[in-house]
Amino acid sequence: MRIFICGFGTVGQGFAEVIARRSQFLEERYGQPVRITGAMDSRTYVLDRDGLDPLDLVARKQRTGRVGDDEYSDPTAVLDAAAYDILVEVSPTDVKTGGAGLGNIMHALNDRKDVITVNKGPLALRFNELITLAKRNKCKFRFEGSVGGAMPIINLCHENLRGENITSIRGIFNGTCNFILSKMDKGQPFEQALKEAQQMGYAETDPTNDIEGYDSACKVAILANSVFGRNVTFDDVKITGITGITEEAISMAASLNMVIRLIGEISDTKLEVGPRLIPKGHPLSISGTLNTAQIISDLAGPITVTGRGAGRLETASAILSDLISIMDERSEV
Amino acid sequence: MRIFICGFGTVGQGFAEVIARRSQFLEERYGQPVRITGAMDSRTYVLDRDGLDPLDLVARKQRTGRVGDDEYSDPTAVLDAAAYDILVEVSPTDVKTGGAGLGNIMHALNDRKDVITVNKGPLALRFNELITLAKRNKCKFRFEGSVGGAMPIINLCHENLRGENITSIRGIFNGTCNFILSKMDKGQPFEQALKEAQQMGYAETDPTNDIEGYDSACKVAILANSVFGRNVTFDDVKITGITGITEEAISMAASLNMVIRLIGEISDTKLEVGPRLIPKGHPLSISGTLNTAQIISDLAGPITVTGRGAGRLETASAILSDLISIMDERSEV
Repeated sequence: MRIFICGFGTVGQGFAEVIARRSQFLEERYGQPVRITGAMDSRTYVLDRDGLDPLDLVARKQRTGRVGDDEYSDPTAVLDAAAYDILVEVSPTDVKTGGAGLGNIMHALNDRKDVITVNKGPLALRFNELITLAKRNKCKFRFEGSVGGAMPIINLCHENLRGENITSIRGIFNGTCNFILSKMDKGQPFEQALKEAQQMGYAETDPTNDIEGYDSACKVAILANSVFGRNVTFDDVKITGITGITEEAISMAASLNMVIRLIGEISDTKLEVGPRLIPKGHPLSISGTLNTAQIISDLAGPITVTGRGAGRLETASAILSDLISIMDERSEV
Repeated sequence: MRIFICGFGTVGQGFAEVIARRSQFLEERYGQPVRITGAMDSRTYVLDRDGLDPLDLVARKQRTGRVGDDEYSDPTAVLDAAAYDILVEVSPTDVKTGGAGLGNIMHALNDRKDVITVNKGPLALRFNELITLAKRNKCKFRFEGSVGGAMPIINLCHENLRGENITSIRGIFNGTCNFILSKMDKGQPFEQALKEAQQMGYAETDPTNDIEGYDSACKVAILANSVFGRNVTFDDVKITGITGITEEAISMAASLNMVIRLIGEISDTKLEVGPRLIPKGHPLSISGTLNTAQIISDLAGPITVTGRGAGRLETASAILSDLISIMDERSEV
């Protein structure tokens, strides 16, 4: 099995490392090696039909800032020159246009390649188009890591809960906001909690995407499309961020034995991100950078899953889960 | 697909109801109806090769206390007379001998039938023998509902997390104990909390099995065998129940911002059930009758799942999940 990795930042490097760590397991399971035959970052690329050493790629990127020696102008031309079976698209999320990732995914699907991505832009903007394209070309298209990182949610709903009528999902889909709100629970003002999140590397220099709820909204759109079969985009989500939450509001909540959390809500009719009062001790009242989701269905009742929403190996673990799922399906044929 | 239901108490009736509710879904998904062609309780049985009406069975059992008109002396003779593809074994758990369920499961596997069970006795006592028998006869053998009811755990570990190296599982596997401990958190003495649990129907008249930790220990043994590939039985589990937990201990824990919970712990070397101090806000600090489990693995880190550990439809939903999984595999062949 030949893999092309598009995007070689934290997640791409983490996935390369995971491939190195699991190479023996994968070869034993499928009777064939999993090889990385190409990789590309925002400017450079490297190809080798015989397979690249994953850890060499990571070392080179960390040493030089470039994954390859050669620069490209058109990423799809690089894909055309590569020999691969599965595209792993983990370039940076662009919620406005879908970014380079959108073009890469469409190009690969048009070329009848399977695709795994955690890139929220293409999924939040053009979900149904991508799913339709994948179906038409009989390609597998997976994106477990796009919502909640290592927290199992999409494949859980599709596989383990496939006999359930899922009526709603409510969850915490942004660890940065949850870190800030948890700090505010302990008396820190918003600005100080945000600063600490930035110092810890949880929030970016421009934190807009997290604190205004845009990142959560992407995930809400992805779940609405993939679990509820809706046809929505990021722009359809009613969004309120956490910048308006005052210390007084937090204190008021605490006096009621509640906390304030940024909750994404999805059902057949609901599509919202906003601060909500959650009773202490409720599964959605968790603190810190974790992500969590509560799935309500007619038979099982509420099922809650919690896990690390981000991180180098954690997100890569979700990609590995998708890879194994695709390879299982391929080996059944 | 023809199903025989062994055991027609709460879970058996719940499963019959679920089959009625999902008959159209199943027929559309697999292009064939799912029919119940036999059912048996502790004394009576009923067979019909053309399929029995699930809701009629439930109504008759509730009206007369018997699922069938005819009594039997040898359950395996009933199974031999039945025409079925999958045995759903949900007769009462017997942790000492495995009970009738053990014989029924072995008989069905020997007869090359697939088996789904939530019966903890056979699984906690003779797990590896049953798995070996199923493998030898190329039968599918599933038991998702035996641990945590509707909470996904066994199939989650086997399917979604199949690329992970799972190093440990810690969890709350008995809702009755957790209800009692949650009440004690609020100042109730043990005896009063137990009485309330009995009044609510959460605890049986003889609560030994729950409060001494035996029920949790069964689940710990099942997870050790099925997820960690160990070869253990109920008797190998180091068990401490909750009867020795004093109000003073609960107060002491609260003063440290902790709660006491009955935790089952499984790893390659650990096999224990006992009261543990859990920090408030930790995923394992939940209150009420819920079950929860925290799975630690090398890539994903901690993943926590929470759900209803018991209940008519909730446990039946886990059986439905196993049924769909088996039918998916059969339709791939």
